[in-house]
Amino acid sequence: MGVTIGMAQMEVFPGDPARNGACMLRLIEEAREKAIDLLAFPEMCLPGYLLGDMWERPSFLRECEAWAERIIAATAGTPSVAVVFGTVIPDWSAKGEDGRVRKYNGYIAAQAGKAVRHPGLDRDYGIKTLLPNYREFEDPRHFHDTRKIALESGKPLESLLEPMVLDLGGRACRAGILICEDAWEDDYAHKPLAILGGKGCDFLLNLSSSPFTAGKNEKRNRVFSYKVRNLGIPLFYVNCVSLQNNGKTVFTFDGRSTAYAADGRIRAESAAFAPDLTPVALEWRGDKADLAAPQDPAAPSGGPTAKAAKPGGKAEGKAPERKTKSDAEADRHIREYHLALRYGAKAFLDSIGQDRVVIGVSGGIDSAVAAALYREILEPQNLLLVNMPSRFNSGTTRDLAKELASNLGCLYAEIGIEDSMAVTKAQLDGLEIKSPDGSKFAAISLAGFVMENVQARDRSSRILAALAASFAGVFTCNANKAEITVGYSTLYGDLGGFLVLLGDLWKSEVYALGRHLNKEIYGREAIPEGSFTIVPSAELSESQAVDEGKGDPLIYPYHDRLFFSWIQRWNRATPEEILEWYVSGTLNKELGLQGTDVHKLFAGAAAFIRDLERWWNLYNGIAVAKRVQAPPILAVSSRAFGFDHREAIGKPFYSTRYLELRRDLLGNSGKS
Amino acid sequence: MGVTIGMAQMEVFPGDPARNGACMLRLIEEAREKAIDLLAFPEMCLPGYLLGDMWERPSFLRECEAWAERIIAATAGTPSVAVVFGTVIPDWSAKGEDGRVRKYNGYIAAQAGKAVRHPGLDRDYGIKTLLPNYREFEDPRHFHDTRKIALESGKPLESLLEPMVLDLGGRACRAGILICEDAWEDDYAHKPLAILGGKGCDFLLNLSSSPFTAGKNEKRNRVFSYKVRNLGIPLFYVNCVSLQNNGKTVFTFDGRSTAYAADGRIRAESAAFAPDLTPVALEWRGDKADLAAPQDPAAPSGGPTAKAAKPGGKAEGKAPERKTKSDAEADRHIREYHLALRYGAKAFLDSIGQDRVVIGVSGGIDSAVAAALYREILEPQNLLLVNMPSRFNSGTTRDLAKELASNLGCLYAEIGIEDSMAVTKAQLDGLEIKSPDGSKFAAISLAGFVMENVQARDRSSRILAALAASFAGVFTCNANKAEITVGYSTLYGDLGGFLVLLGDLWKSEVYALGRHLNKEIYGREAIPEGSFTIVPSAELSESQAVDEGKGDPLIYPYHDRLFFSWIQRWNRATPEEILEWYVSGTLNKELGLQGTDVHKLFAGAAAFIRDLERWWNLYNGIAVAKRVQAPPILAVSSRAFGFDHREAIGKPFYSTRYLELRRDLLGNSGKS
Repeated sequence: MGVTIGMAQMEVFPGDPARNGACMLRLIEEAREKAIDLLAFPEMCLPGYLLGDMWERPSFLRECEAWAERIIAATAGTPSVAVVFGTVIPDWSAKGEDGRVRKYNGYIAAQAGKAVRHPGLDRDYGIKTLLPNYREFEDPRHFHDTRKIALESGKPLESLLEPMVLDLGGRACRAGILICEDAWEDDYAHKPLAILGGKGCDFLLNLSSSPFTAGKNEKRNRVFSYKVRNLGIPLFYVNCVSLQNNGKTVFTFDGRSTAYAADGRIRAESAAFAPDLTPVALEWRGDKADLAAPQDPAAPSGGPTAKAAKPGGKAEGKAPERKTKSDAEADRHIREYHLALRYGAKAFLDSIGQDRVVIGVSGGIDSAVAAALYREILEPQNLLLVNMPSRFNSGTTRDLAKELASNLGCLYAEIGIEDSMAVTKAQLDGLEIKSPDGSKFAAISLAGFVMENVQARDRSSRILAALAASFAGVFTCNANKAEITVGYSTLYGDLGGFLVLLGDLWKSEVYALGRHLNKEIYGREAIPEGSFTIVPSAELSESQAVDEGKGDPLIYPYHDRLFFSWIQRWNRATPEEILEWYVSGTLNKELGLQGTDVHKLFAGAAAFIRDLERWWNLYNGIAVAKRVQAPPILAVSSRAFGFDHREAIGKPFYSTRYLELRRDLLGNSGKS
Repeated sequence: MGVTIGMAQMEVFPGDPARNGACMLRLIEEAREKAIDLLAFPEMCLPGYLLGDMWERPSFLRECEAWAERIIAATAGTPSVAVVFGTVIPDWSAKGEDGRVRKYNGYIAAQAGKAVRHPGLDRDYGIKTLLPNYREFEDPRHFHDTRKIALESGKPLESLLEPMVLDLGGRACRAGILICEDAWEDDYAHKPLAILGGKGCDFLLNLSSSPFTAGKNEKRNRVFSYKVRNLGIPLFYVNCVSLQNNGKTVFTFDGRSTAYAADGRIRAESAAFAPDLTPVALEWRGDKADLAAPQDPAAPSGGPTAKAAKPGGKAEGKAPERKTKSDAEADRHIREYHLALRYGAKAFLDSIGQDRVVIGVSGGIDSAVAAALYREILEPQNLLLVNMPSRFNSGTTRDLAKELASNLGCLYAEIGIEDSMAVTKAQLDGLEIKSPDGSKFAAISLAGFVMENVQARDRSSRILAALAASFAGVFTCNANKAEITVGYSTLYGDLGGFLVLLGDLWKSEVYALGRHLNKEIYGREAIPEGSFTIVPSAELSESQAVDEGKGDPLIYPYHDRLFFSWIQRWNRATPEEILEWYVSGTLNKELGLQGTDVHKLFAGAAAFIRDLERWWNLYNGIAVAKRVQAPPILAVSSRAFGFDHREAIGKPFYSTRYLELRRDLLGNSGKS
């Protein structure tokens, strides 16, 4: 005889315990109907997880407490069902290190209407031990943890970590319960998974609230399979589906709850980006529990077969960036990106109560991919594409924009900016300004870059913003990660919008995603072929004429990878490393350039350095200020701009070693 | 015979170890000239402190290490001078919990060209023990600490904290060295100041990198005086002067390094917001060290005489908000605000290499105060005020704007927006949009709020942005904290700009600052009296005609305090608490309303609740999205918007208890 454990992969709405609690109550009833003995919910499934400083509101904490009581009460009655769920646990009698009421990122195990006592803590709840504090995670800002309790109380941490004993199907089961990072223990001095695994558990539960990052799923399967096999104890990883943000960066939570048998093999996997209640049978042979064997042992359900290889590196979202992606991996990432972006765009619109979108379409690839993505989740009458030509826009791109709208069957308008440019020029160009007493004087002229930016702002702040308001919708920002890195976009212009959906994709990834959309999703040329093949260009002056092959100053195959090395490389590269590699002839390899030879791109060291410093200065200078005012970015990579890759407005940093290398190459004048 | 300790209150430039290191080398030479025996520098004075994730760059860490070596080497030679300085200490052989190279927020004590061994850690440096993790602080994100070393090594923390022994003037002195938060120990289980103070120190050093917050200086004097008196050991608090930011929020560091005698009295205080090298004599009576008695004991230099009262509450920037401010306190805060804003505006401009500023001036108080502040730090020919009237702007405000420019003697222009409005109306109002196949249709109209926002965006994104670019400067955002709280400003419109200088001041504080500027700084009516007395208004429609007394929907004397309770009250109020207080008749008192009775402001419960929910919905809804794209805000209060008061874009939270209260008041229909 065995027991059935349900992985309750629910959709969590951050900051809405009433909605989440109601969903949990429904799932408990469903579990009863399905004869599930134990229903395991994700980490922080009642309050949500990324809530900024909302944890500082006592009324919010009380509300979460009240809902936890209701969930506990709901385990009374028959047929019996036990639950384990993650939530915030306030300890009103103690202080956190911020001086406020102490809070735990904890879990409650309940059955027969009562919370189960934690034997290690002697409390009615368990507590997360390892609090992640990197990328978007800032658990220790809000939560106290078991390690601090150990240090304060003088008790060894090991004594505080104990399995919870649950009565499941008449059997006293020992459940080793961990919260998310507790199982990503490799970089921590204390190993909760190893500690609990050594205490005679029948099974392990990992309650997670784990955001999607390209490649993290495979990484988790490698790490968990390896650890589970070594411990010889089955493990249930229960993750939520959700969209949560920290203001500047928006994260999707992909679910994919997974059951690992004691040999590390995956026996069940829940849906990606959709709520799912997956029952999994646990059986005993003698006193050893394990997942029931699969129906067809040749095809374990879902996911890659666990190889149980020794995992390299550790915690979530950190390992994938360490190696160069293979083509197959890159393909898989694009597929995953697409799932995350589609779920993310829809959930973000829902979360702000919007269902109509305006997109400025230039004829280029970025806005075309954005439009094709939004068209997947919006009715055609709720999607409005707008082309806003000036004298510098070619017929080629205007036709591509219209073709795109035609392919997608949505609303389309062409609204020019020449009349408005004329007003602004007449008003400001050549304007002479004085002090009221006439003693001071300044002359205004609109030329060059100034006029380029005037055009960009006119499109977004005048036309798109007004159209969106009248259309009762929002307008998008179509910038990609390469542009955002160096601020190759205009503040209050093309950097405006409600969300930067493609802001965590390099230009090459935007192209790949476009190909994927045409081939796999639309099965036709939804995005016109011309948008893939035309030279990328802002078309803001004669020097950017696409029909003459003139376009952006960025050489994307090179700069994508150069910028990647600054932001996503595990050991962040700076000009020092770049120049070391350039000098030693290893730069192509270090950046992972394929089909591009940096030594052929630039005429020599001076040109190479001029380009390097140009972008490094922008990345660390004005581009930071632009990002501070940029819309939220949807994260898909191992490091996204915003409040994931955190940064201060400041001056670019050049190390002494860099300056020496530079002098060696260019001589003492130092002029590049 | 005694020794002289120099408080090296240097100006720290974040992310620029070369500049900071060069400054330290100069100060060491100056210390030699002044016969200073020990020169104490602030926390993190080599790298800077608020650097985002720049700590993840190995080349930056290596640069800081190399500079630390140069500082250590500079202590060789005669006359001898010892130094203690705070810096980042990478431990390349160990990992932090983020999997990266381990780093400490540490300090190095050096003399005779060598680092002094730390007897507790058996390393050539000391380590910060308490890592703050609230407001803008996120030390544990980047740094490992002594508590973690204790837990890992199984050694008691007490054994790791030991005084450093320095040879000063031939005497082996025991210096108890702490870094900033280490002395703000009240909310932590372990108390580094008490531990070190119990180990027979001759004196204590607190190296700090402590941002300015209104009232924090007084708070520090209360707390430190009390603790120092109890320990009976003199303490030197050495803070930096600096401007640092975390992208969204900009912080000033006010210096004010302070020497406390063993009885808790202040014996020396360095300048506010300016670099300062203050030598302080330390004398021994028997084996007990203390600061030399002041020349004139009736007038201890600088600062209030320490009362050594028991401090209430704990760490920096948290306590002042707990009580209602007295008038004298409010006055002192405004004086301090002014110092912080003036230093902050100048240092921020310097940091981004700008010295010319454009300000859109409406005739109202916010832009007038901003202009008067910038005029303090800029030459008149580098300050350009622009009034941008539409048909809705009164002659009254236009005259006030011009009068302001005349008073300040700076450049002034009046540039209207009617022509541009006409173009936009002609292009968009009544526009009919179809899908390319004609099957779908939408009609655009510009009316009401849509047209108000069109005007606001036209002013900032079209005129101010272009003027600033041509003027080779930046333009300002003049929003105040009340407006920012509820998003009463237009994105890409009046919410645009390079910095929100007054964004952490409530409307009442903006008025008070204006009065202070006229009276104390200008000594004349620089800001026209009319800007104080006119009704605050956006003048974007007929319904906002100032000459008819029509203006903003915000009743500032009430809403300032209501919003304060949501953001700055220690236990954040939400509609639940507000309604509880309203019902119990204590709301006036709880909000600290003076001269305003909330029960007279609103006709009854329904009107009160309608107003409450209106602003709560905005604060938690669209206003968050606006703040995500707002310029950086200069922080002066105990909680500023940005990455101080962190928040997620989401839906407003109403607790079950609130909904019950509401139902009790309004009946089951629930309509307000």
